[in-house]
Amino acid sequence: MAKNQALASNMGVDYVIVFRYATTDKAQAEERLEDMLERLSNAGLATEVRKGENHSVLVFVKIGSSEHMQAEIYRNRVKDWIHGVRSQEPAMDTDKSLEQDPLTEAERLRTIHGLITHIRDEGGAGITPGKGKWENVESVFALHDHNYNKEWIKKWSTQYLLTPEDLDEIRDRMGEKIAFYFAFTQAYFTFLAVPAGFGLFAWLFLGYYSAWYAIVASLWSVVFVEWWNHQEQDLATRWGVKNVSGIDEKRKEFSPKHVVDDPVTGEQMRIFPARDRLQRQLLQIPFVIAAVLILGTLISACFAIEIFISEVYTGPFKSVLTFLPTLILTTGLPFLSSILTKAANSLTDFENYETEAQYERSLTSKTFVINFITSYLPLCLTSFVYVPFGKVIVPYLNVFSVACRPFVKDGKQVQCPTSSQFDINPARLRKQVIYFTVTAQIVNFAMEVVVPYLKRQGLMKFKKMKTERQEKKSGVAVRSAADLDPEGETDFLARVRNEADMDVYNVYDDMKEMVVQFGYLALFSVVWPLAPVSFLINNWIELRADAVKICVEMRRPTPWRADTIGPWLDALSFISWMGSITMSALVYMFSNDGLGPDGQPSDITGWALLLSIFLSEHLYLGVRWLVRTSISKIDTPGRQKERRALFSTRRKYMKASLEKTKLAPPPGEKADDITRNSLEEDARQASLHSATPQEKFWDRQRGWKEAAKMGRLFIERDNDDVDDARVKKEL
Amino acid sequence: MAKNQALASNMGVDYVIVFRYATTDKAQAEERLEDMLERLSNAGLATEVRKGENHSVLVFVKIGSSEHMQAEIYRNRVKDWIHGVRSQEPAMDTDKSLEQDPLTEAERLRTIHGLITHIRDEGGAGITPGKGKWENVESVFALHDHNYNKEWIKKWSTQYLLTPEDLDEIRDRMGEKIAFYFAFTQAYFTFLAVPAGFGLFAWLFLGYYSAWYAIVASLWSVVFVEWWNHQEQDLATRWGVKNVSGIDEKRKEFSPKHVVDDPVTGEQMRIFPARDRLQRQLLQIPFVIAAVLILGTLISACFAIEIFISEVYTGPFKSVLTFLPTLILTTGLPFLSSILTKAANSLTDFENYETEAQYERSLTSKTFVINFITSYLPLCLTSFVYVPFGKVIVPYLNVFSVACRPFVKDGKQVQCPTSSQFDINPARLRKQVIYFTVTAQIVNFAMEVVVPYLKRQGLMKFKKMKTERQEKKSGVAVRSAADLDPEGETDFLARVRNEADMDVYNVYDDMKEMVVQFGYLALFSVVWPLAPVSFLINNWIELRADAVKICVEMRRPTPWRADTIGPWLDALSFISWMGSITMSALVYMFSNDGLGPDGQPSDITGWALLLSIFLSEHLYLGVRWLVRTSISKIDTPGRQKERRALFSTRRKYMKASLEKTKLAPPPGEKADDITRNSLEEDARQASLHSATPQEKFWDRQRGWKEAAKMGRLFIERDNDDVDDARVKKEL
Repeated sequence: MAKNQALASNMGVDYVIVFRYATTDKAQAEERLEDMLERLSNAGLATEVRKGENHSVLVFVKIGSSEHMQAEIYRNRVKDWIHGVRSQEPAMDTDKSLEQDPLTEAERLRTIHGLITHIRDEGGAGITPGKGKWENVESVFALHDHNYNKEWIKKWSTQYLLTPEDLDEIRDRMGEKIAFYFAFTQAYFTFLAVPAGFGLFAWLFLGYYSAWYAIVASLWSVVFVEWWNHQEQDLATRWGVKNVSGIDEKRKEFSPKHVVDDPVTGEQMRIFPARDRLQRQLLQIPFVIAAVLILGTLISACFAIEIFISEVYTGPFKSVLTFLPTLILTTGLPFLSSILTKAANSLTDFENYETEAQYERSLTSKTFVINFITSYLPLCLTSFVYVPFGKVIVPYLNVFSVACRPFVKDGKQVQCPTSSQFDINPARLRKQVIYFTVTAQIVNFAMEVVVPYLKRQGLMKFKKMKTERQEKKSGVAVRSAADLDPEGETDFLARVRNEADMDVYNVYDDMKEMVVQFGYLALFSVVWPLAPVSFLINNWIELRADAVKICVEMRRPTPWRADTIGPWLDALSFISWMGSITMSALVYMFSNDGLGPDGQPSDITGWALLLSIFLSEHLYLGVRWLVRTSISKIDTPGRQKERRALFSTRRKYMKASLEKTKLAPPPGEKADDITRNSLEEDARQASLHSATPQEKFWDRQRGWKEAAKMGRLFIERDNDDVDDARVKKEL
Repeated sequence: MAKNQALASNMGVDYVIVFRYATTDKAQAEERLEDMLERLSNAGLATEVRKGENHSVLVFVKIGSSEHMQAEIYRNRVKDWIHGVRSQEPAMDTDKSLEQDPLTEAERLRTIHGLITHIRDEGGAGITPGKGKWENVESVFALHDHNYNKEWIKKWSTQYLLTPEDLDEIRDRMGEKIAFYFAFTQAYFTFLAVPAGFGLFAWLFLGYYSAWYAIVASLWSVVFVEWWNHQEQDLATRWGVKNVSGIDEKRKEFSPKHVVDDPVTGEQMRIFPARDRLQRQLLQIPFVIAAVLILGTLISACFAIEIFISEVYTGPFKSVLTFLPTLILTTGLPFLSSILTKAANSLTDFENYETEAQYERSLTSKTFVINFITSYLPLCLTSFVYVPFGKVIVPYLNVFSVACRPFVKDGKQVQCPTSSQFDINPARLRKQVIYFTVTAQIVNFAMEVVVPYLKRQGLMKFKKMKTERQEKKSGVAVRSAADLDPEGETDFLARVRNEADMDVYNVYDDMKEMVVQFGYLALFSVVWPLAPVSFLINNWIELRADAVKICVEMRRPTPWRADTIGPWLDALSFISWMGSITMSALVYMFSNDGLGPDGQPSDITGWALLLSIFLSEHLYLGVRWLVRTSISKIDTPGRQKERRALFSTRRKYMKASLEKTKLAPPPGEKADDITRNSLEEDARQASLHSATPQEKFWDRQRGWKEAAKMGRLFIERDNDDVDDARVKKEL
């Protein structure tokens, strides 16, 4: 079988399970493997095993019984319906249900994933990778569809804009969670045209720190965030995933405090009181303080060292020492960040959430704090500490001169300038912004796409060389997993082993990158208005590079659903708000068209700075409210669809009910009939004096015709002096 | 029949329709009346007509056909179910549905109201009071249940706190909309205990303008608003009205721009584009500006006159002239407010909303602006204009001395003091706050409860006197509606005529009053910390007085539903936010414990004022976020109920589906059978070389047992140098 064929065919395999037994007792591993295979089979899945690399077994899984598959689809759709994701109850007959609502590739894979991982009470095999009894199950993943991947990359790399249909395609293949990332990045990319265009104009004609640019950028950020909020809901409706975040995917790690039998349903309830969790969540406060202090100290220290070296220090090795702070930062920051991220993970574990969504939200908010500090603190320090207070602080940097005395050979003292001697360097801020918006983006791209590719290639070469050397040394061919491959499957299995070795794609990281980028734009781009132009170019490439990354460097991701980009939306909103503060402060402090102090700290007055921040912030909030209200009123295809569905359902029931009532004789006629036929009977009853006042009251007029007659009389005789007695008699 | 009996019995009447034909041609009126009676009868309602006062006919309505009633209940419940208000589809058999979910008095009355007012296509009689063809229909109202009312007032006036059961009772009787008002006021009253207690403490020990009091009050306002937001949702679940605001009660006045046939459902769609509406809504901006200018000018002018007279003017008539600004305000403000309210109404009409809810929301936001200005602008002027800029402005008040020159007899010039001569009067602000929080509350109570009562009594006496005088003059008994009353119904009909004369209860006004009161507390109470004590007392009475008002002075309100207090929640949130700004500014400007400038304008520095506002506001926003997050995590009975209902529905479906799959033979066994029985057949197929690589791949191991066997082999032989050949052969 040629290699191309191996890429073309997935042998009908739906999922591959990697079972690794390197650190487990062999007998136990065998038992576990057998248990797993039996469970898979009972869940209606067919299996094949093959040898994997490094003490592992590859278990290939495909649908064996369509009943189980259909039942799982039905159960999932019922769950959706109960949580309001679907508006119609799915038919018990799945064929019919599938006809109305065909299965996408994503739903198919998700359903099979459910069969493998759901608990047995819900019809699954109950296999939870890496957890408890299933610690040997290293991973569960689907195989790439290389034909599709090829087409996908080809298509995207040749078109300028992605169409909604391209996003639908992603959704059908990769699930809504990943589709939301691409939809967001695409929307962000399209919106970027505005600040990029205006930024270019501002750079050419308005100069740096233009108030006009700040206003346009702020307004843009509001409109973009609010528009996305709206668009997201529309996409959720379009993709039929509205309210999906309400479906609580239970966390397996959740440990309840009490297990109580529900008095009503008799079901076991696993309870962890909200109070207890709130107490644990209070730990977030010291966590955030610690994060701010730790990262803040490192960044501030490096910042101080850098200023000292570049603007104060005049001793030897200056050219070498300039790199010292960068060195400290690039080694120290990732190290501290990873420690803090670990702490955030443990803290979130400790908070003991019941559902995956809650867990993720809590974790995101913590990592957002870390990211916020590492990304924006350096720029904040330059603009809000170095510029206004530089003259006050720099003299204290003398402490460093003590540290560098040993390097000073000729006894020359490194002396900090006094306040009056020192002048701030206004270009420093711009340089920093250019670094973060251009250099860092390129470095990031390289780290994300190019480096892993080279690493993989290198690793493969290294492996091959090692094997060859061993073989040369021992003279015997080194045994590999491939030796046991059945005939004709070698290429296919090699491909599977390769995919099993790949990393897991985490859409979270890509999303984070976009949000951080948005932050530079919303918070600091007034310093260098070309920033959005750089982002525009970067994101065009980024979108395609991410597609390539998913196809080539990562395992095929499980197609999870989502109805929102989740906590990132809050982050965007928060950043855009902060932007109204930083932008106005920067414009006030640095702009020099007659009003601003042009970055001269002596000219900055507290009340003017605070007033511009105060006005700008409240203007921002007002505009945001207006934009939000206006956008919420825009009708979208998704909403129309929803409304139409509701309307037609309602009309159906309404019609049925109305027809049913129409079959009954019109009560007006009936009442009339009664009047005519049972008049005597009624008279008799009345004469018996058994009638209550109430009965008498309602018996005066029989049917609407009599009532109408009396009404006519009342109206005619009104203000008329003719005999009331006659009217009264009629009553 | 004694009067008590007349009060006790409603004669089985469900609704009374007042048909007034004073200004209509008699023939036309008769025709319309007849049409109305026919329609009512066709909708399944029994009718009786009696003569009303002043050219009117009273149409009594009760359920005539239970089929129509049940069909209407069914249709309403289906509507609820489709909009997610009910979680379960209602049974077509209404008896069964009623057994599960019994009819409350409120639902019964609302259903009958629906039969009268819903369009004929939906099974109603299509009578819309006062609109178009039905302009003669003055009102549609239910009769008071005097027995219940008596008990209600007795119960409430003897208990200190209202229980949740009391509120449930209100909900069952008056509907959720009114119940929400009482629930809110009760919650607000209970919460008031905290600032009232601390306010008393602050007044005794901390003095005015205490920062501690400001912090407690701000914190309290955040907690209260957020808690109510949470509580409201819980109440909505408890009362089964969640999402009820999503049910669009269509406005009859809505005039569409296009009427299009929907291509999918074939239904007529009445469309008014959101763009067009947005354009019309832009008129809100000039409206708000006009309101601010008009009311602002009046209030500022009166304010200036008042200062001039009380603190500058020394001429004659000073004691009389002091009342001049009050006179202008009390006549001018209601006049201008009512003009602006009318303008707000027309503007909202012009905005042409499709549903009642949208209309109400838009109208509320406009009247909120008017209320905000009239209620808080005077205090804002004193604290933020008079105090800091008094010295600058007062000399300009000289203009008034020109106006009062004619009054000055002895040629003495009224001369404004110059800046240096004039001293601000720090007690002015406190006096104003006391006026708004005590005097105005009492006046308000009197205007709301006492005055209408006296007015009614007076009017009745006046009518009687007039009739008596006429009779004396003409010697003939003046004919009244009562003369035509059938025997034994006189007292009852007199009562009905009386109720028809009453005002319509508007829960909106009562709600507004509470929100405005909350505003004084959140914005200005730091000036006089006893304000919450005054409110606490006022609200205890207010709650009972409102109950009396509904029972005695108003027609029985139609029991509308609601799932929120609606736009007022936004107003509360906005006020509480503003509070963080005003409170901090007041504390900074007036507190004198060593830091503040003690109200001496010369000591107020711009940056310190702005910094305290900036810090306080952001602290407020941070705390609000924390409180909101914490409160949203609290589990409530309503939520538990909802979750349980979802869970049990899901379990039902899940069980059914699982049992169905279990009936199918376990596919593992099946696969095994195939292996054993058709082994030869497969071998033959394979030998025919017709098998694809994929078929071959999946045929290597038959069933999970064979797969497990191979897996065991892989694990056992791993890192073992014994014959791979044997393993390979097994494959």
